[in-house]
Amino acid sequence: MKEVIEKSAKRPRIVVLIGTLVAGAFLWALVPGVMAGDPSGASTYMGDLEGLKTAINFTWVLVSAFLVFFMQAGFALVGVGAIRTKNTVNYLAKSYMDFSLGAIFFLVVGFALMFGGSGVAPGLELGNALIGYSGWLLAGEAYDVTTSMVWLFQAMFAATAATIVAGAMAGRTKFQAYLVYTVLVTAVIYPIYGHWVWGGGWLSTLPFGAGARDFAGSGVVHAVGGFVALAGAYLVGPRTGKFRTDGTPVAIPGHNVTYIVLGTFVLFFGWFGFNPGSTLAATDLRIAVIAVNTFLAGAAGAVVACYTTFFRTGKANIFLICNGSLAGLVAITAPCAYVPPWAAVLIGAIAGLLVMASIWFVEWVLKIDDPVGAVSVHGVNGLWGLLAVGIFADGTYGGVSGLIAGNTGQFVAQAISAAVVVLWAFGLGLLIFAVIKYAIGLRVSREEEVVGLDISEHGTPSYPGPMDSWR
Amino acid sequence: MKEVIEKSAKRPRIVVLIGTLVAGAFLWALVPGVMAGDPSGASTYMGDLEGLKTAINFTWVLVSAFLVFFMQAGFALVGVGAIRTKNTVNYLAKSYMDFSLGAIFFLVVGFALMFGGSGVAPGLELGNALIGYSGWLLAGEAYDVTTSMVWLFQAMFAATAATIVAGAMAGRTKFQAYLVYTVLVTAVIYPIYGHWVWGGGWLSTLPFGAGARDFAGSGVVHAVGGFVALAGAYLVGPRTGKFRTDGTPVAIPGHNVTYIVLGTFVLFFGWFGFNPGSTLAATDLRIAVIAVNTFLAGAAGAVVACYTTFFRTGKANIFLICNGSLAGLVAITAPCAYVPPWAAVLIGAIAGLLVMASIWFVEWVLKIDDPVGAVSVHGVNGLWGLLAVGIFADGTYGGVSGLIAGNTGQFVAQAISAAVVVLWAFGLGLLIFAVIKYAIGLRVSREEEVVGLDISEHGTPSYPGPMDSWR
Amino acid sequence: MKEVIEKSAKRPRIVVLIGTLVAGAFLWALVPGVMAGDPSGASTYMGDLEGLKTAINFTWVLVSAFLVFFMQAGFALVGVGAIRTKNTVNYLAKSYMDFSLGAIFFLVVGFALMFGGSGVAPGLELGNALIGYSGWLLAGEAYDVTTSMVWLFQAMFAATAATIVAGAMAGRTKFQAYLVYTVLVTAVIYPIYGHWVWGGGWLSTLPFGAGARDFAGSGVVHAVGGFVALAGAYLVGPRTGKFRTDGTPVAIPGHNVTYIVLGTFVLFFGWFGFNPGSTLAATDLRIAVIAVNTFLAGAAGAVVACYTTFFRTGKANIFLICNGSLAGLVAITAPCAYVPPWAAVLIGAIAGLLVMASIWFVEWVLKIDDPVGAVSVHGVNGLWGLLAVGIFADGTYGGVSGLIAGNTGQFVAQAISAAVVVLWAFGLGLLIFAVIKYAIGLRVSREEEVVGLDISEHGTPSYPGPMDSWR
Repeated sequence: MKEVIEKSAKRPRIVVLIGTLVAGAFLWALVPGVMAGDPSGASTYMGDLEGLKTAINFTWVLVSAFLVFFMQAGFALVGVGAIRTKNTVNYLAKSYMDFSLGAIFFLVVGFALMFGGSGVAPGLELGNALIGYSGWLLAGEAYDVTTSMVWLFQAMFAATAATIVAGAMAGRTKFQAYLVYTVLVTAVIYPIYGHWVWGGGWLSTLPFGAGARDFAGSGVVHAVGGFVALAGAYLVGPRTGKFRTDGTPVAIPGHNVTYIVLGTFVLFFGWFGFNPGSTLAATDLRIAVIAVNTFLAGAAGAVVACYTTFFRTGKANIFLICNGSLAGLVAITAPCAYVPPWAAVLIGAIAGLLVMASIWFVEWVLKIDDPVGAVSVHGVNGLWGLLAVGIFADGTYGGVSGLIAGNTGQFVAQAISAAVVVLWAFGLGLLIFAVIKYAIGLRVSREEEVVGLDISEHGTPSYPGPMDSWR
Repeated sequence: MKEVIEKSAKRPRIVVLIGTLVAGAFLWALVPGVMAGDPSGASTYMGDLEGLKTAINFTWVLVSAFLVFFMQAGFALVGVGAIRTKNTVNYLAKSYMDFSLGAIFFLVVGFALMFGGSGVAPGLELGNALIGYSGWLLAGEAYDVTTSMVWLFQAMFAATAATIVAGAMAGRTKFQAYLVYTVLVTAVIYPIYGHWVWGGGWLSTLPFGAGARDFAGSGVVHAVGGFVALAGAYLVGPRTGKFRTDGTPVAIPGHNVTYIVLGTFVLFFGWFGFNPGSTLAATDLRIAVIAVNTFLAGAAGAVVACYTTFFRTGKANIFLICNGSLAGLVAITAPCAYVPPWAAVLIGAIAGLLVMASIWFVEWVLKIDDPVGAVSVHGVNGLWGLLAVGIFADGTYGGVSGLIAGNTGQFVAQAISAAVVVLWAFGLGLLIFAVIKYAIGLRVSREEEVVGLDISEHGTPSYPGPMDSWR
Repeated sequence: MKEVIEKSAKRPRIVVLIGTLVAGAFLWALVPGVMAGDPSGASTYMGDLEGLKTAINFTWVLVSAFLVFFMQAGFALVGVGAIRTKNTVNYLAKSYMDFSLGAIFFLVVGFALMFGGSGVAPGLELGNALIGYSGWLLAGEAYDVTTSMVWLFQAMFAATAATIVAGAMAGRTKFQAYLVYTVLVTAVIYPIYGHWVWGGGWLSTLPFGAGARDFAGSGVVHAVGGFVALAGAYLVGPRTGKFRTDGTPVAIPGHNVTYIVLGTFVLFFGWFGFNPGSTLAATDLRIAVIAVNTFLAGAAGAVVACYTTFFRTGKANIFLICNGSLAGLVAITAPCAYVPPWAAVLIGAIAGLLVMASIWFVEWVLKIDDPVGAVSVHGVNGLWGLLAVGIFADGTYGGVSGLIAGNTGQFVAQAISAAVVVLWAFGLGLLIFAVIKYAIGLRVSREEEVVGLDISEHGTPSYPGPMDSWR
């Protein structure tokens, strides 16, 4: 009883602190003083050719952003399908809350850190090679249609990076701890590495090749999410019963394969916004090649994973088909704009092999419990995507040429970028999860884990109807 | 036996009558006589700048309409997840049939009543401040590409208004009664209030502020749906066992939380068509701010609902997270174009509180059984959205300024509009459901309800496999 | 043991052969020699009016292609919902692999056969009235943004044709046999008939009316898929227990109605890409009428199927509502651009009747087991769609006029096209499935079928959690 009271007394502290800061930020936004950009769009679109170009590009980017939003549903479905029934509600709640909290904190903090100084839209003037510091709350100069368009697309990406971690830590992580992590990743970890690559920061201006290039975020989104996930899965420890006393892993089956495959379809669908939308312009007609490459890499990853397991075991493993396909999609995300279609097939095919090797490595060698393979799909293949730019870029787009075009500089830039993302994401991931662990606790109690997080954290089972109403 | 024969003899009567009218209308459409507008689009797009603008805007509106269509799947999923297994097929059938019947009747009747006289596209010339009367069947002058584009977008909205009611009346309403209601709401109730606000009717020209403004339909779609739902839920009565003899409500758990959350994701995704698409133009670049506001309000509603329940009970209630998010989306629907991003967060946050209060009020005070909270999500927050225009409009768009910009006139117009929608939707809702109740019966028999509507109305359970094939 | 060894020894042979050919093709793509088209898009979009038009049309076609991709998820859901639980993983794996393999083989072979000689984009110059032979691998001249855009849209269509067959052969077809079929249909069967109609082949230039017209593929996609499915279902034979010894069919219930309806919603949503996207241009404003017609036909099919069963049996059959709606969508796919909205309602309504009659005919007269009604939905209504062009085309678009406009020539062209698709698809379908049957076997063993294909072919049940974790 005492414990319960202490618990509820302790709970609000950190949230009240954060809440106060957010409220203060909002009050700041109300202060006029600063002139707005173009909030109505009337001076951005003036009926001429340039205005029409802007309208086409808004259409393209917004529709792409909507597709990326829908990926949240895909992540949720893949996750719940791959875990036990008793943790389903918990996973769904985390999925819904990570993008919700992420949206608020990317508005208040993250976006300014990431794109301040990039100058890509009004109100984003202030920033340096390490960090940005303008565009807070889309207020002042940043209350502008172009800035809003960029924000929406990028907010969806921040939410994607955040949600990747949920899968690796499923089934034993405290709900409140997960929410605190979400705030930190969308407000700080993701935006700062993102600034270095996309916000005009130091990685984008490396003196090798064209500087580090990551077209749609194999590194910025997926490797960040994947290596924060590795840190989290390591610190929270494996699910009870995942490893025998001799250290051999035990398969813990999920509860619904249909959800996994449906989720993979949804993710693939959303990826057509993720990659081609990253041109931020439909007038950049390379979008067609990007879409083709995305499709082919996702397909090739599935084919390779399917046939590999089919030949070795006589069974076509559906989890590996899905993870192979997702690995192909993660891997093509950085190089999608720079490589020809045949290379996309190769990149996806190699991703299909890599993901299988990595899942085995994480489970059997590192002895880390990653219920959905998030580290292997997003982390390892995020790195592979970064390197693939340095290998397969054929020089037809953006001035990026890799090994197949006879240039080694780009590969060096990509390798540096890959090393940095591992250090940054895994390092800060360890730090924040360690802080959370000792401040409010990272893991539910043994009893709560056995009962399941649906009951212990949310008070309802996922399939709450009485059994006799089943039919 | 006799009863069964009478039943089947009685059944066709009203449907045959309606069918005959529809057939007559179709024959009328075949009469040439009237010239067509521009059915091929060849004289609307002529290769110049103006033609390109039209093509961009068609792209924007059609894609938005497709997204709004997909919301039907979201409504279906949220509904079936929240009800008992034994009524699942029934709910799905109602969901599928309401948009199907709605499409036909909005073609034959509703569209002409709503947009006749608006002059927004060819063939919509005739109408007055109370009602429209041209554009029937998209025939004659209305056989035109622009009119078709407008029709499609608006037909999706009519279908949305219709399907809102299904949730509030789930589990005890006759299938045939629901279909008759669907025809009436899409052909008459929705279009006439819609005409007053969007078709050039009297509410849009009120002499306060800029007249009543409802950008994407907090009132026109959601409050109409929500208050017709209130009338329906009241007249059909609560599900057996919902209230104890002393009047205290009993929780009737749903059957699948994953469906609820997936459905909420789908609705959120579709809302990005609903709100930004309502500009009917991508050259109106405010679409970016509208999309940002939509995202933020839906996120803020989820955050507030989540933390409120989490602090009060120690459990994060997934139903309230979803309903809080949907409430935020409903509330931002009217003001989405007129307010800045920080206001969208506030509007969504308040909606998250309102929906919880309203769900409690409907269940504990009104003693009305609304299985999915449709009245609270769509009705109450539809009104809140209308009022929020009068409070938070900052004057940067469309000449609409609310209290924060120092103007009170707009708030008056919004309050009138809110009062009218309650009277109209709840009043006509009572009327049509009362007529249906005494003409063909509104509610299934006690036996049918206990067995479940899947078997009694559709002849199949929702999970029909034999139990031994389960794995 | 010996059998198992032989089995695994035999397995790779055909796959290794195909794999070698594909690898060879890839090496060929690496040979430079041939100049590329415009892989960056920089000389296709040059900032002028024509360039903007191209950018709008890319946006339209790519977004449409993404929607068509998502139909794969719809097909998967409808299929798994309609079959037994024990075959769910198998169906999902087939669904995922058919589009994945299809993408690779349409890249390597199919696209060149289909669009070579059409001249619709760079690199597609070589071909004749019977077959095309340029555009292989999107390499050489075909490494171009416009060609890539066309490829993506068409690849999605090829994948759709392929996946239709899965439903008709569900529950007893070998996984490997299905994959071999997939390769053949996407590489050869689909592309060649497609060339005749869309690639400038002989059917498109028939000397009747405007030549055979099939706007979005009632014939090219759906009838091809449907009649290959008929051949496959016939050769693989019915599921064990489907027909009694006296030949009367036994209903084998599916396992999840929610999946069926959700899948139908997803298919309907995707169809808005399928039909309106087939203009390949948003500057062709007829897209609005096409979208309206698509919506109305799908709605009318559902209404007719619902009321027919409701009046006859007193129960509204959910399977027929969904199949009626899909039949309406299939039927409007060919005529969607050529007919007015009232005709779309009629075409859909007739499709709703046809699909019910055909399902009865296939099951009771032909005694063929088609678990999801694929032959009736896609085959029969694909033919109805082709004929409907010849009846209802009103001459307002594309110079196509049918019987209602007083012309009989178009109907003749459509009838020829319909006869050819039956002969081609059913004939080649019989051939390839017969070859597969005698080469590697088409059907699983009786034991595997009884246990279910999930365990025997994939090694996992679809709902693998232990029963005690259910809640």
